[in-house]
Amino acid sequence: MRYVVGIDIGGTNIVAGTVAEDGSELLGLVSEPTFSEQGADAVLTRIVKLTRASMATARGKEIAGVGIGSPGPLDTKTGVVLLTPNLGWTNFPLRDRLTQALGLPAALDNDANCAIFGEWWRGAARGADHVVGLTIGTGIGGGIVLGGEVYRGASDIAGEIGHMTIDSTGRLCKCGNYGCLEAYASGPAIAARAVEGIRPGADTSLPKYVNGDLSKITAQVVYEAAHDGDEYAREVVKDTAKFLGAGVASIINIFNPEVVVVCGGVTLAGDRLFEPLRAEVRRRAFKPAVEVCRIVPGELTGTAGVYGAAAVFIKHTWGHA
Amino acid sequence: MRYVVGIDIGGTNIVAGTVAEDGSELLGLVSEPTFSEQGADAVLTRIVKLTRASMATARGKEIAGVGIGSPGPLDTKTGVVLLTPNLGWTNFPLRDRLTQALGLPAALDNDANCAIFGEWWRGAARGADHVVGLTIGTGIGGGIVLGGEVYRGASDIAGEIGHMTIDSTGRLCKCGNYGCLEAYASGPAIAARAVEGIRPGADTSLPKYVNGDLSKITAQVVYEAAHDGDEYAREVVKDTAKFLGAGVASIINIFNPEVVVVCGGVTLAGDRLFEPLRAEVRRRAFKPAVEVCRIVPGELTGTAGVYGAAAVFIKHTWGHA
Repeated sequence: MRYVVGIDIGGTNIVAGTVAEDGSELLGLVSEPTFSEQGADAVLTRIVKLTRASMATARGKEIAGVGIGSPGPLDTKTGVVLLTPNLGWTNFPLRDRLTQALGLPAALDNDANCAIFGEWWRGAARGADHVVGLTIGTGIGGGIVLGGEVYRGASDIAGEIGHMTIDSTGRLCKCGNYGCLEAYASGPAIAARAVEGIRPGADTSLPKYVNGDLSKITAQVVYEAAHDGDEYAREVVKDTAKFLGAGVASIINIFNPEVVVVCGGVTLAGDRLFEPLRAEVRRRAFKPAVEVCRIVPGELTGTAGVYGAAAVFIKHTWGHA
Repeated sequence: MRYVVGIDIGGTNIVAGTVAEDGSELLGLVSEPTFSEQGADAVLTRIVKLTRASMATARGKEIAGVGIGSPGPLDTKTGVVLLTPNLGWTNFPLRDRLTQALGLPAALDNDANCAIFGEWWRGAARGADHVVGLTIGTGIGGGIVLGGEVYRGASDIAGEIGHMTIDSTGRLCKCGNYGCLEAYASGPAIAARAVEGIRPGADTSLPKYVNGDLSKITAQVVYEAAHDGDEYAREVVKDTAKFLGAGVASIINIFNPEVVVVCGGVTLAGDRLFEPLRAEVRRRAFKPAVEVCRIVPGELTGTAGVYGAAAVFIKHTWGHA
């Protein structure tokens, strides 16, 4: 059995793990903060160190290569990260730099593609022929896996599900467009909607979670308050489900997938999110398409990107996964 | 050279033509009103008659089969049309009935898939690997052609681009959802927006085109008035471009295609529509995705569905097209 290191580069943390070619085993899962403000070279050094640490745990195994998931946009053919505002990289030849440092072949894809490919390979969307996924965090990323292949489009930009317009005259999104799904249902958007709705004297315990400093309210805090029984926080979660439902309904009408998988911190909200989400999708999307589609949380919490990055290398190099 | 009859069944007309296997020739293009109110058997008889008329023109050619484009939803594997409100069919085994009547093998797909497959095979999207198309008429249909294959999803429902939500709290669509693209930019939606905006004494010549009977205003009338210089009609066309632009921008962010092809009567509006449409897409979609994508009108006016239906048979039977 050959092994491949999967590396998931996020704005906050880098995670690496050594994965068996058939996905049956994940060894040496290691993680460190990204510290992107230290610059590309420092981050690269940290990636190399983490990769070696993971490989050390898998001592004795044949390590055939490295798969990398990075924020994009990027060019999967040349292995160059074109521009990542979060990391401050521009035209950074990540794949080849990593190959030089490690003496191993490598393959690169974007982080959301890797996460959804991981969920297809070993997680909640295993074995499905038509899969669309969302990764909800600071932004909303997306990945499309059709016939067991990541769908990348004409120039590796495809899958930007978070930048589907759900309200064409709505909120300004960071991307410059109005009314993107991301502007309503990303972590910061959920927090912002929660804060906006809090009026002096409002009947919510949310301020107590942050010692009265509303700027500290995050999506996580909203889920926690909802879990604890705060009705206002529950309304915010329900609204989130409605916005997501509009987006997922469009996805179902367009792709007619067997699975829509939703990954990221938002899954912490559990059924409180997924039940109204599924109800909203039933209200909006074509019935025969809804009937064949499961809408599920990701299963590989914290490791989807690692599995997926390894699978990208395996698919690219050996044609399977 | 083998030939295939392509049949395009619309709510208003049926069109048939005999197409060379390599798409280089279209013979015997014939058409008749559908008269769907006469029932499925009468329509089938008319389809058979038209097909024979087309084949007669191609006398001496080897006719290998028939491709059929029909309103859906339908099942491409069993060849059954499940439900077409426009035609009044329920679980109608169109493919096998046609095969029995003609003694020829047949393949079935939905009308919009056929139109966009036709544009990919012989029209405006020829040779592109990632194509998304819209057919704008009474409704808005859609077709997706990836790697030279019609993308059908898990159960032949995929491609309902017209039922992508662009304003989640917006206009009620015929499908039951709110804010579908179709509710803003289909032919009847364009006409409805034009009529709604006409106030007594408004500075528009539109009422003159219909002898004052506003219920007679169609999208075509709006294009004609816009062409003749009516500023109000031009505004309606520009608004249409904005709504379409929101939808097409989402398509580009999701699919990153080389071509978005827009078919149907709306193309009569020409650059008056396509220029603001492209501008709106540039404002909304990711720049690197916009840069690689042409947004163009269909080229096969009146015959895209016939070419595409023939190509569906050819692809299904011989694996190429």
